[in-house]
Amino acid sequence: MQAIETMLSTTPNAPKMDRRALHNLIDAALECAATCTACADACLGEANVTPLRRCIRLNTDCADTCGITARILSRTSDGDPEFVRALLEACARICAACAAECQRHAGHHGHCKICAEVCLRCEQQCRKTLRALPISA
Amino acid sequence: MQAIETMLSTTPNAPKMDRRALHNLIDAALECAATCTACADACLGEANVTPLRRCIRLNTDCADTCGITARILSRTSDGDPEFVRALLEACARICAACAAECQRHAGHHGHCKICAEVCLRCEQQCRKTLRALPISA
Amino acid sequence: MQAIETMLSTTPNAPKMDRRALHNLIDAALECAATCTACADACLGEANVTPLRRCIRLNTDCADTCGITARILSRTSDGDPEFVRALLEACARICAACAAECQRHAGHHGHCKICAEVCLRCEQQCRKTLRALPISA
Amino acid sequence: MQAIETMLSTTPNAPKMDRRALHNLIDAALECAATCTACADACLGEANVTPLRRCIRLNTDCADTCGITARILSRTSDGDPEFVRALLEACARICAACAAECQRHAGHHGHCKICAEVCLRCEQQCRKTLRALPISA
Repeated sequence: MQAIETMLSTTPNAPKMDRRALHNLIDAALECAATCTACADACLGEANVTPLRRCIRLNTDCADTCGITARILSRTSDGDPEFVRALLEACARICAACAAECQRHAGHHGHCKICAEVCLRCEQQCRKTLRALPISA
Repeated sequence: MQAIETMLSTTPNAPKMDRRALHNLIDAALECAATCTACADACLGEANVTPLRRCIRLNTDCADTCGITARILSRTSDGDPEFVRALLEACARICAACAAECQRHAGHHGHCKICAEVCLRCEQQCRKTLRALPISA
Repeated sequence: MQAIETMLSTTPNAPKMDRRALHNLIDAALECAATCTACADACLGEANVTPLRRCIRLNTDCADTCGITARILSRTSDGDPEFVRALLEACARICAACAAECQRHAGHHGHCKICAEVCLRCEQQCRKTLRALPISA
Repeated sequence: MQAIETMLSTTPNAPKMDRRALHNLIDAALECAATCTACADACLGEANVTPLRRCIRLNTDCADTCGITARILSRTSDGDPEFVRALLEACARICAACAAECQRHAGHHGHCKICAEVCLRCEQQCRKTLRALPISA
């Protein structure tokens, strides 16, 4: 999203990390939140819902977590670095779990196939950011 | 976001409205939520915060509202049409209020200028969707 | 929640409405958000999910809406009164729709029975607040 | 909140942890989310906002995180235990950081004093739950 990138360049609170990398993470998290929300709803509409219960559960947790990750990373003023690290760990973890579950249904449901890809992309952005964060004292 | 559009074409819950229009609305709402979150944080970092209090307040309400509008519209299964209409009215209203307030600071702060534009775009998408919704019996 | 009431009495942004009424609304909305979240998850675990699809959909929309209603009403600084009115209309509407759907399953599922009651309570608090809001010029 | 406790006893998805403890955590997280939202808004209304910038930032992150912690813990169906653990770590961390910052302003602002107490209570419930979680294989 173009606007986010411009926002990051006009804020008086200079981001502590590379702006391009930060924008990629926010973008991936927003996309993942929306995709997981849509996937949960699509699963709920399938003829046979029962095997998709866990997928719906993980989709919903993943949507919630990616949603606040995008929000919290969009704030570049003076926050708590250890918290950001812990949040990114949690976000990477639910993205991985959700991707694995969606992958199991990817052969049957196009929405699960796309969702698995989007979750993996978000997990990768979280892990990339985690490696780039300064080591705290 | 490409993934959202593909999700809307693979769900068993066919959207009741034009898919392209729905995608545009979700996209605008996600962008507005993230931009308002960033604008509130940028305002908070300005040397003189006091005149920006109301901007921060409206940014935060707008971010919350656009965030759930994107979520709720991403679900295309059988919801409540009257609620969707009321939600879009509320969303259009806060986007308009936030755009007007940001506009007042657009000459001084680049982030407010961008945010005003993004809010107006989201308001327009809400209004466009409202006009396209079927009239309920 | 005791803490919320005390917060409302220590803020420099004096609420524009009766503090007790505001606290009741925030409390009802938080309870409704959490109850609907739990009801959607409980429905998903029932042996026969298919007839509960719409209940899950409305539960999720209701949880999202009540969650931001509580957040937005917890802010008492200078916001946009017309937006608050539109949001409360939307919130009352989804609470009513969710209560009606849960009521249909109340004979079979204890969680739907409780959820219907909690949604009705929240709808009533929204409507009470709507009647108490000043008429805008 | 009475309704949450009853929901946890009527769900077909039996919680994996003590119901009373789970209810205490959800309750503390909901209270913390609402209190932090109100504290950020109250800080924004103080005559001298500048020294409260970091408090507002941490309040907002804490409100977001506690909000989804309450949501995710309200779902007792088959989720991802490692994710829940990581989320509770993140939640405990932001509660601690927010409590410490609010404590610095507790002598001047009643809302910060209450918010510090509520954050500490939520941190304790997170840590208590973390100790009670089964060690994953």
